[in-house]
Amino acid sequence: MNLIGRSIIGYQRGAEQQETLQGVDPSTGLKLGPAYSSASDEEVGRAVELARRAYGSYSRASGRQKADFLRAIAANLEGRADDLAERGCQETGLPDGRIQMETGRTCGQLRLFAELVEEGSWVDARIDRADPDRTPLPKPDVRSMMRPLGPVAVFCASNFPIAFSVAGGDTASALAAGNPVVVNAHFAHPGTAELAGTAIRQAAEECGLAEGVFSLLFGSGLRVGRKLVSHPHIRAVGFTGSRKGGRALMDLAASRPEPIPVFAEMSSINPIFLLPGALSRRTDQIAQGLYGSVTLGVGQFCTKPGLVVLNKGPLGDEFARQLAGQMGAAPAATMLHQGIHQAYRRGVQGRSRNQSLELLAQSASDLEDPACQAGAALFRAEAAAFLKDSSLADEVFGPSTLLVQTGDRNEMLKIASAMEGQLTATLHGTEEDLKECSDLVQILERKVGRLIFNGFPTGVEVCPAMVHSGPYPATSDGRSTSVGSRAIARFCRPVCYQDFPSSSLPPELQDGNPLGIRRLVDGQLARG
Amino acid sequence: MNLIGRSIIGYQRGAEQQETLQGVDPSTGLKLGPAYSSASDEEVGRAVELARRAYGSYSRASGRQKADFLRAIAANLEGRADDLAERGCQETGLPDGRIQMETGRTCGQLRLFAELVEEGSWVDARIDRADPDRTPLPKPDVRSMMRPLGPVAVFCASNFPIAFSVAGGDTASALAAGNPVVVNAHFAHPGTAELAGTAIRQAAEECGLAEGVFSLLFGSGLRVGRKLVSHPHIRAVGFTGSRKGGRALMDLAASRPEPIPVFAEMSSINPIFLLPGALSRRTDQIAQGLYGSVTLGVGQFCTKPGLVVLNKGPLGDEFARQLAGQMGAAPAATMLHQGIHQAYRRGVQGRSRNQSLELLAQSASDLEDPACQAGAALFRAEAAAFLKDSSLADEVFGPSTLLVQTGDRNEMLKIASAMEGQLTATLHGTEEDLKECSDLVQILERKVGRLIFNGFPTGVEVCPAMVHSGPYPATSDGRSTSVGSRAIARFCRPVCYQDFPSSSLPPELQDGNPLGIRRLVDGQLARG
Repeated sequence: MNLIGRSIIGYQRGAEQQETLQGVDPSTGLKLGPAYSSASDEEVGRAVELARRAYGSYSRASGRQKADFLRAIAANLEGRADDLAERGCQETGLPDGRIQMETGRTCGQLRLFAELVEEGSWVDARIDRADPDRTPLPKPDVRSMMRPLGPVAVFCASNFPIAFSVAGGDTASALAAGNPVVVNAHFAHPGTAELAGTAIRQAAEECGLAEGVFSLLFGSGLRVGRKLVSHPHIRAVGFTGSRKGGRALMDLAASRPEPIPVFAEMSSINPIFLLPGALSRRTDQIAQGLYGSVTLGVGQFCTKPGLVVLNKGPLGDEFARQLAGQMGAAPAATMLHQGIHQAYRRGVQGRSRNQSLELLAQSASDLEDPACQAGAALFRAEAAAFLKDSSLADEVFGPSTLLVQTGDRNEMLKIASAMEGQLTATLHGTEEDLKECSDLVQILERKVGRLIFNGFPTGVEVCPAMVHSGPYPATSDGRSTSVGSRAIARFCRPVCYQDFPSSSLPPELQDGNPLGIRRLVDGQLARG
Repeated sequence: MNLIGRSIIGYQRGAEQQETLQGVDPSTGLKLGPAYSSASDEEVGRAVELARRAYGSYSRASGRQKADFLRAIAANLEGRADDLAERGCQETGLPDGRIQMETGRTCGQLRLFAELVEEGSWVDARIDRADPDRTPLPKPDVRSMMRPLGPVAVFCASNFPIAFSVAGGDTASALAAGNPVVVNAHFAHPGTAELAGTAIRQAAEECGLAEGVFSLLFGSGLRVGRKLVSHPHIRAVGFTGSRKGGRALMDLAASRPEPIPVFAEMSSINPIFLLPGALSRRTDQIAQGLYGSVTLGVGQFCTKPGLVVLNKGPLGDEFARQLAGQMGAAPAATMLHQGIHQAYRRGVQGRSRNQSLELLAQSASDLEDPACQAGAALFRAEAAAFLKDSSLADEVFGPSTLLVQTGDRNEMLKIASAMEGQLTATLHGTEEDLKECSDLVQILERKVGRLIFNGFPTGVEVCPAMVHSGPYPATSDGRSTSVGSRAIARFCRPVCYQDFPSSSLPPELQDGNPLGIRRLVDGQLARG
């Protein structure tokens, strides 16, 4: 390690600056060396200018070249897996196995995008051939395909130091589309960011790519991120974090002289609806599964279920009793950083004082402990009280959830209807329950990105069909996703060529289909 | 005609209101009957509430049902083609043939979307099947497809009273995706809007659709549109118009408690670059074509070429001389309305007084005439002067264009680099020119939605490959298009179903593919 960590600006390192930040071991509260220099405004500008220049060649890199780059990043991350796990654990309090799993997932995601761009059909090539004899006007030859937007700013998430950070889904999809990326490291895990950033920088050099295809900026406060999003050459933003932070970036991007798209994944309480048949058969299994999902990663998942809606009655009471037993015995664990720990404390304390709520269980943890230890907490409310107090639908980030007991089916529908946009909603029950609750499903379809049946929302599969998105405030724009191969669509736009000679077209649109990709030719799919 | 025209709110008519607006024949300045009542705030709310309710059933309508609706709209428009032409001509000053052509184009567009949704593959259905034996964790069954966003607000354009208005591309694509639509009529052609709106309303009734799938609101000022875009149940906005108007809607939508996406098509000067080989062979042809493109529809096209970049020298001078001859002899014609006519006057007067510009030609027209008559105007500037004065790159909406003469190739690149986002850019020359100017093409690819070779940008083909979009300020979000079948992507979002039983899935995602659509199954395209 260096004495002073510095930003990665293209193939160079930034300068030492007076303003620094430092990782902190949340389990001890002790600072971790080295200190990292916050990028100066000039360094932010340099990284973006390098990205702008790199865009010239990188936006035209072949699918094969981009796939090689993405695979080289994965290989370099794997080569540093132990370092990443060691440093990641120190900076986040997460266990070794979790960080190793995240690295594996991240590499899998990079390779998914490598396959996508190597295969090449993702560009949605369309060809409508000319008809010079058409009357009253001849028909021109019109061809179009997706092309990259330009330099993308990526903000790292606190809760996934690998998979939603420097080399995570935003970076992978932006690079796959052909965009240079400038990453703003999360202040809580600069060392992990540096390791991942070095893996990408090295991959870029190994692949002989233009300097600036990737940069990593450290920043102790909001200045670096704001400067980045305001920079005229940044063309899009990817962000995973709090609603407040995401909305601030959305507002900043929307108020630029040239507004740019922001994909911000923000807050979600991921409601779970227990339909009648669920508790009559699987009380133990659901309570066990829910406990696991709420406490996984110390409840610090954007898909953590923060609301469980179930009917009143003996079955519901038995379920609450079982869940309370598990939640009350949950071992205290280390949260990611002091800010998150304090927010969790405030959230739990606020709910404990709320007269509408009953505290069913709280596991031991010294909430005054500077070491970010947190226990689990389980609350219960009546549906009417929940519907009256909109703060109860706010996200409490951490190992806590809220049972809301309904008197009838109508109350369940009311709760669903009153909900804000969510990443997920889950239904538990029999197949007959699901059919009978088609009205509930219809409401939820309008509110969420992903509906789950008889499962739990944590654990987001990386696959072509995945949707990790949802209407605001779950994300800034529910029309895309930050996980799965559709994520690439956030960072590209269609460009059309009219009456161009074949040899001056990008290969994807040339006569004879030299790349052999799937294309829509005169309205018909063709590979020829 | 009624004595007082009123908004169409679902299957009802709005009330008579004190606030009214009236069409004006721009060729005479005389008001056209009847007066139209501006929708009250309560009526705006009622139209949106009906749309929200209609969304429940219409969002689940089959592709076939939606196709029937779109085709019924087309048939009803065709049944009113003569009325539309008569009223459209009165309200816009455009000739009969133009309005008839627009109606034909609009019906073709409705049928394009009917085919798209009837075929069904547009939903991008994806299925990743479960693998219960996968280690360390079983793989869930994950399926996703595009679903409609919810009620869409559509703003009519002044310059295309049929094709970009009540039944235009925004409405067609939003309805095709399964969204109810609330249209804000353009103040300058309320009678045309009423005819088209009645055609849609009637089609909705014929097809037995829920009331509220379509409404048409009249408004004399900004109040109705603002109320509409601010309404919490409106989920997206489509707009074609001025940069000022579009940006105001973007800002309003971005500042909502729940921001919503806006697709605004705004301003563009559609530069044309004449490469060396163009003028040596086709001076007459290009001058003639450019004259036609600049003066088509009295220059009131969003794709009108407002900038022509060419080299200095005898060939360029001869081209300028020929074009000036035609522009100077252009017959005066009626502009759409007084506001546009006044803005054009101000634009031409401002350029006439600009010391950096030379007025090469101006055709006769009494610019003081209240009857909105406008003549053509041709200006010339040196490249250096153009680069110094950014106002020269502003859009002047009307039959005027600006020749910018460059001393060398480098100046041409500088002009391209300095350009804002555009809908189109056009290159004229030989195929060799195009190859030699690959650097220019690369710059333009980043700036525009559509590149044209040896043609003219006016006349936007409605086809699957068309892109009518471009980086800001050409549009609010260059990642989509308002013409062509990709336009549907603006108004839908992916929804994912995890481990759902097949019978509770939408048909598009069910086992056995009952609709026979194209789907991505485990990463492979399949129709089975």
